[in-house]
Amino acid sequence: MHTLIRHRRWLVPVLTALVVLAVAAPALADDPDPVAMVNDTNTALNIMWMLIGGFLVFFMQAGFALVETGFTRAKNVAHTMMMNMMVFCIGAVGYFICGFAFQFGAVNFTWPEINGLSAWAHSPVTLGAWVDAAGNALLSTPLIAFGQHGILGGSGFFLAGLGGSTGILAFFLFQMVFMDTAATIPTGSMAERLKFTGFVLMSLWVAMVIYPLVGNWVWGGGWLQNLGRTMGLGNGAVDFAGSGVVHSIGGSVALAGAMVIGPRIGRFNKDGTANPIPGHNIALGVLGTIILFFGWFGFNPASSLGFVGGFGALATNAAINTLLAGAFGGVAAMTYMWVVSSTKKPDPGMSVNGILAGLVAITAPCAFVDASAAAIIGIIAGVLVCLASVWLEKAKIDDPVGAVPVHFANGLWGVIAVGLFANGNPNSAGWNGVASSVTGLFYGGGFGQLGAQLFEAVAIAVTVVGLSYVFFLGVKAIGHLRSDVEHELQGLDLPEMGSIGYPKDFEPSTEAVREALKGAKAGATVPAAGD
Amino acid sequence: MHTLIRHRRWLVPVLTALVVLAVAAPALADDPDPVAMVNDTNTALNIMWMLIGGFLVFFMQAGFALVETGFTRAKNVAHTMMMNMMVFCIGAVGYFICGFAFQFGAVNFTWPEINGLSAWAHSPVTLGAWVDAAGNALLSTPLIAFGQHGILGGSGFFLAGLGGSTGILAFFLFQMVFMDTAATIPTGSMAERLKFTGFVLMSLWVAMVIYPLVGNWVWGGGWLQNLGRTMGLGNGAVDFAGSGVVHSIGGSVALAGAMVIGPRIGRFNKDGTANPIPGHNIALGVLGTIILFFGWFGFNPASSLGFVGGFGALATNAAINTLLAGAFGGVAAMTYMWVVSSTKKPDPGMSVNGILAGLVAITAPCAFVDASAAAIIGIIAGVLVCLASVWLEKAKIDDPVGAVPVHFANGLWGVIAVGLFANGNPNSAGWNGVASSVTGLFYGGGFGQLGAQLFEAVAIAVTVVGLSYVFFLGVKAIGHLRSDVEHELQGLDLPEMGSIGYPKDFEPSTEAVREALKGAKAGATVPAAGD
Amino acid sequence: MHTLIRHRRWLVPVLTALVVLAVAAPALADDPDPVAMVNDTNTALNIMWMLIGGFLVFFMQAGFALVETGFTRAKNVAHTMMMNMMVFCIGAVGYFICGFAFQFGAVNFTWPEINGLSAWAHSPVTLGAWVDAAGNALLSTPLIAFGQHGILGGSGFFLAGLGGSTGILAFFLFQMVFMDTAATIPTGSMAERLKFTGFVLMSLWVAMVIYPLVGNWVWGGGWLQNLGRTMGLGNGAVDFAGSGVVHSIGGSVALAGAMVIGPRIGRFNKDGTANPIPGHNIALGVLGTIILFFGWFGFNPASSLGFVGGFGALATNAAINTLLAGAFGGVAAMTYMWVVSSTKKPDPGMSVNGILAGLVAITAPCAFVDASAAAIIGIIAGVLVCLASVWLEKAKIDDPVGAVPVHFANGLWGVIAVGLFANGNPNSAGWNGVASSVTGLFYGGGFGQLGAQLFEAVAIAVTVVGLSYVFFLGVKAIGHLRSDVEHELQGLDLPEMGSIGYPKDFEPSTEAVREALKGAKAGATVPAAGD
Repeated sequence: MHTLIRHRRWLVPVLTALVVLAVAAPALADDPDPVAMVNDTNTALNIMWMLIGGFLVFFMQAGFALVETGFTRAKNVAHTMMMNMMVFCIGAVGYFICGFAFQFGAVNFTWPEINGLSAWAHSPVTLGAWVDAAGNALLSTPLIAFGQHGILGGSGFFLAGLGGSTGILAFFLFQMVFMDTAATIPTGSMAERLKFTGFVLMSLWVAMVIYPLVGNWVWGGGWLQNLGRTMGLGNGAVDFAGSGVVHSIGGSVALAGAMVIGPRIGRFNKDGTANPIPGHNIALGVLGTIILFFGWFGFNPASSLGFVGGFGALATNAAINTLLAGAFGGVAAMTYMWVVSSTKKPDPGMSVNGILAGLVAITAPCAFVDASAAAIIGIIAGVLVCLASVWLEKAKIDDPVGAVPVHFANGLWGVIAVGLFANGNPNSAGWNGVASSVTGLFYGGGFGQLGAQLFEAVAIAVTVVGLSYVFFLGVKAIGHLRSDVEHELQGLDLPEMGSIGYPKDFEPSTEAVREALKGAKAGATVPAAGD
Repeated sequence: MHTLIRHRRWLVPVLTALVVLAVAAPALADDPDPVAMVNDTNTALNIMWMLIGGFLVFFMQAGFALVETGFTRAKNVAHTMMMNMMVFCIGAVGYFICGFAFQFGAVNFTWPEINGLSAWAHSPVTLGAWVDAAGNALLSTPLIAFGQHGILGGSGFFLAGLGGSTGILAFFLFQMVFMDTAATIPTGSMAERLKFTGFVLMSLWVAMVIYPLVGNWVWGGGWLQNLGRTMGLGNGAVDFAGSGVVHSIGGSVALAGAMVIGPRIGRFNKDGTANPIPGHNIALGVLGTIILFFGWFGFNPASSLGFVGGFGALATNAAINTLLAGAFGGVAAMTYMWVVSSTKKPDPGMSVNGILAGLVAITAPCAFVDASAAAIIGIIAGVLVCLASVWLEKAKIDDPVGAVPVHFANGLWGVIAVGLFANGNPNSAGWNGVASSVTGLFYGGGFGQLGAQLFEAVAIAVTVVGLSYVFFLGVKAIGHLRSDVEHELQGLDLPEMGSIGYPKDFEPSTEAVREALKGAKAGATVPAAGD
Repeated sequence: MHTLIRHRRWLVPVLTALVVLAVAAPALADDPDPVAMVNDTNTALNIMWMLIGGFLVFFMQAGFALVETGFTRAKNVAHTMMMNMMVFCIGAVGYFICGFAFQFGAVNFTWPEINGLSAWAHSPVTLGAWVDAAGNALLSTPLIAFGQHGILGGSGFFLAGLGGSTGILAFFLFQMVFMDTAATIPTGSMAERLKFTGFVLMSLWVAMVIYPLVGNWVWGGGWLQNLGRTMGLGNGAVDFAGSGVVHSIGGSVALAGAMVIGPRIGRFNKDGTANPIPGHNIALGVLGTIILFFGWFGFNPASSLGFVGGFGALATNAAINTLLAGAFGGVAAMTYMWVVSSTKKPDPGMSVNGILAGLVAITAPCAFVDASAAAIIGIIAGVLVCLASVWLEKAKIDDPVGAVPVHFANGLWGVIAVGLFANGNPNSAGWNGVASSVTGLFYGGGFGQLGAQLFEAVAIAVTVVGLSYVFFLGVKAIGHLRSDVEHELQGLDLPEMGSIGYPKDFEPSTEAVREALKGAKAGATVPAAGD
């Protein structure tokens, strides 16, 4: 119960008048200019929207935990759940230390005029002015750059000096949970055999290094975001909520990790055929999927970073398209498995992945495409995830929960889809410092935007898979990547975590029971503490 | 990271000034009229409230999945979870194609003057003007009607032409998740024996036909909504958040389905007595209930379709009454089972259903009744659900999770409760095009409002049970309603879905283990991919 | 579908004009004063923020249910889940009857001038004027007091007369779910042996008596809140979101309950050593933890009770610090167990409790400390919860889920942390009727604030543990505290609840199967209802 005092109020003698005044007081006291007042309100509304969205994205952590645990074996439950819970904690620490600074240290920096395009800063104006008490711009150090091509930020470590800016704090929270979504994806592809020390190192790798680096290129003012200004490719790489930044990065780390760590024991036979290793609990897996879908309504719509005016239009577009692409993706994958594939059943596992694939694919284009395009993008995603799962198995890469088909393949598909389906939505005019609207090939935009999107897709895949492959080789070299064979066979829960997922009920000793019954007979129904 | 460019901004030479300007810029650039600005902000706030509410309603899908799966058997886990996940996907597709158009194609149509009442359009003004770029009203085709009695809309298929209206897109999302709540209810009453093809057909029946039709009557401008104007019955049928529209429709389909599909094998004995068939996981069932309660705070309060001014008062009323009716419903059912019924235990299953019954019953009246009335409505609901469960069993209708007692019986009770307890809340003045406030029998409103509510209750029950009964007979006739007896006995998971809910851990072959151990001894701790 | 009629609108003849007007209409009709309009909008925004926060706090009920059930035994699943679900229902009833009135009956009362400080009322101005239609202040009866030291409110029973104030209704909802968080904590420490009747009595004790009483002291205008005005101790007891009010109260009841009820059979051996009794499902426990973390983003940030202006800054501060303290708490506890403790494993149970401990500890200071302080507070909490668990075991108090280490120990730590780390945030100026900002020892505030915090910590611990100890002795005396020994050994599910948590699948009798197969062969695939 915590009320800011209204200083002018205490002189009023009558209680009734006093309370009635309370509402009007802030206006009288602070600023009677209604335009300034509305702007303050709008900033509050925008920040609130982004915070609520960030909370929903946080909750996706539960979805990932359940999908990964449900679709793996009972003997690794504690290990898989713990990875998905602790990746948030470890990731938050790493992102707080340096990840945010690497990714967004230059987000408020003003890029100079170039190619006839005016100067440009891309801090979100929806979130208020990002200045300190003295009026100096925050997060405005120039990027480390090759010529015009920025690649890494460098201010805002430990959030030092940023505590006075509500907009930046809220922005940090939102970006932190996005990073964490990327960091949690590889725990799926390496599940059931990743050492817990290796998991900790992987979490730090994503949170502190690879995600901030590549994420900077698309969202932090880096070279991909500026391809429109520097090379005339449409509006530069456009990735509304992160098909590329979040899902392709996470999926690329997942792919590199799965390749280096190798398949689970028994996954592939000597003759090259594969054995399915079903997960232990479809109920958890489906529950996790619904939670992920729910959280995606924060992920995509709140990436408008505001809700007043055109930002609300972008957010609502994003919400509708998210709903449709997820639904069509699920229906497409279910239908594909039921009608086309050899199983001829509406397979739960692939239906789940079809939904997630549709959601991943719509993440980049969600605010920029029509509802019908969202449906098409979702349908393609639903089929693509089925095909990619087969390709992955043929390549003898073992990915227990399908992280690569879902996040890597469909993340890339989503990035490319922007270049095809972006409809020139007027609310996207000026995106990435280019005055035109984001327009794809099918909507008369030519190949410029598609080119920028291909740049993003290739840059992410090559950079992240490549560097992460090297990283995991290093982890392997120091013996922290893969758990011992005996531990894998037994299940990682006891050797790695010290606890199993589903312990049998503890039974008290006969003596303890006799003792308890004796007490009960003597009239005391309980064995009192300390007796 | 995605910032709309501010064109006027780039001329300013000094960074600090530039950033400070950023907040004020939208006002300067677009419209310095503060009244217009506030109206824009209010529209944004209203839409945001409705979207967040819609997200919460979406999450109820997880609640339904868990309640239905927890209170059925382990051998049908994959089947029950999949129905509850895919009903959303299939339903979204169907509602996108035609459901929304049938239900709301006339929501922006202006009804003429009648009986001395002025002309009336019932599109929610809170959500902005629903016009296209040329200023023409959207969703304004007249209903197919018998005289003054409208029964079906017909514009807005595939959302075509509506993409420019943020308010309509957001409204579509909100209505889609409401429809889906209705569609998921019958999966409970037909659980453990419904063919998956039959489930798909049922989903489409609800999403594309029966829900849009009857939902139109109450919310889309149809004849029940206009009973106040056409026949002088109070404010016409008043159903704030859908005790009737959502729950009675869903419950009616559930009842017809349960009747046509017949009881599960072993549910009733030859002598007419019943066998209880307990669900396999109370933890999941209770978790699902809490999720449903959580989602209901979107369902009811956000049905205000706005939050500024009187709409916020309606929403807050709804929230408080939802809390109280759910709580009192749970306490009432628990107490009834503990004290009155023959079991003499605080039965978990009936406590769950008591909570849900209270929530269903308060859904129609939530914004229009006092807190004390909400308590009474909840208590009656909690007892009614216990009694209705007994009646259903006596009628030898098998409803594994109590969908009919919860949604059908208490949906109707909620509709009627409006006619008894509506308190003449001034914020309800003008509801459904009638100037007076919504006032029930106990608050001096006479029998007019009660009459309208009885019309709604009877019309829904008769129409939906009747038409759905015929529909399910048709599905049965083509052999897609009930799964084979052998499949039912074995559990539907493997024959219908191709996966069981809780597979045992896969164990690698001895040869694979020997191979892995050999690798381990040789120093390589893992069998590398592709070796 | 429910649109407030706009009376002035029906005269306009052209539909297009009519729809365009709709947005402007409220302004024209109600009030063209833009300042008043913005104030209305701000009140709506503030209330909406608090409601959404309240919904998130409600959802924490699911988190508590899963943590407690996951970390206890399978034989008590139905009992533990039911306690956590019904505590909300029972608590809501009790709080509606008298709890709210006891706690907040004087929240709108104006305290007189004292010690040179001006008169002060602490109803939140963010939520509108709390007056009835006649302009009289609501919830403004003076507290029962000893001199200047108020201890108990007394108006607002059954919410009677408050239905017209949207702000108060929303405030009731928010406070009700906070109370419930406290009430659900003791079900953890007394799990697996508490009679269900004893549980009902405990719920009422918290909801109707002990929480309202002590909660009043800190949030309802009582003596601890006024220590700054009456005794010059900083800003009086400052507890932003309830480390003390919610968690220490809940934890104190949990401690008293665990002491009186005694340890579970078999928990301690005759020689004084302890047996670990592992919970049955780590997946549920971790899921519950993530849900709790998610809900905490409502708990702490929405305790700003508003979002416009400085309230949004407080809320955002709270959100960031909540994220960081929870994350650092988890990492600290995991690291402590892995490196320092004897287990040498990243223990899942303690990692869970480390996260929760960090969240509990940051709850009081979240809006008033720097991000770096939040990290430190979280780290200390993560280690403290490990140490407190050991101390508790040494004291032979059995607390199955660690409710006391998490909520009692870290609740007190959080209260004290305000006195150490509060940074003089200007948005806290005027808190509790004292003009200065809240400033702790380490930030130049001297010992005043720390003194007030120690008062709060000691007053809560002594009062609540003491009175609850007596209360539980009374419950024990009438035989409703501890379940029978036989029931405890067997598991409480069947004897107390009449249902077990995980029933085996029901199998139909041979005769029923034969009957069904006969029907199937005859062409009818189903045994029709009523045959």
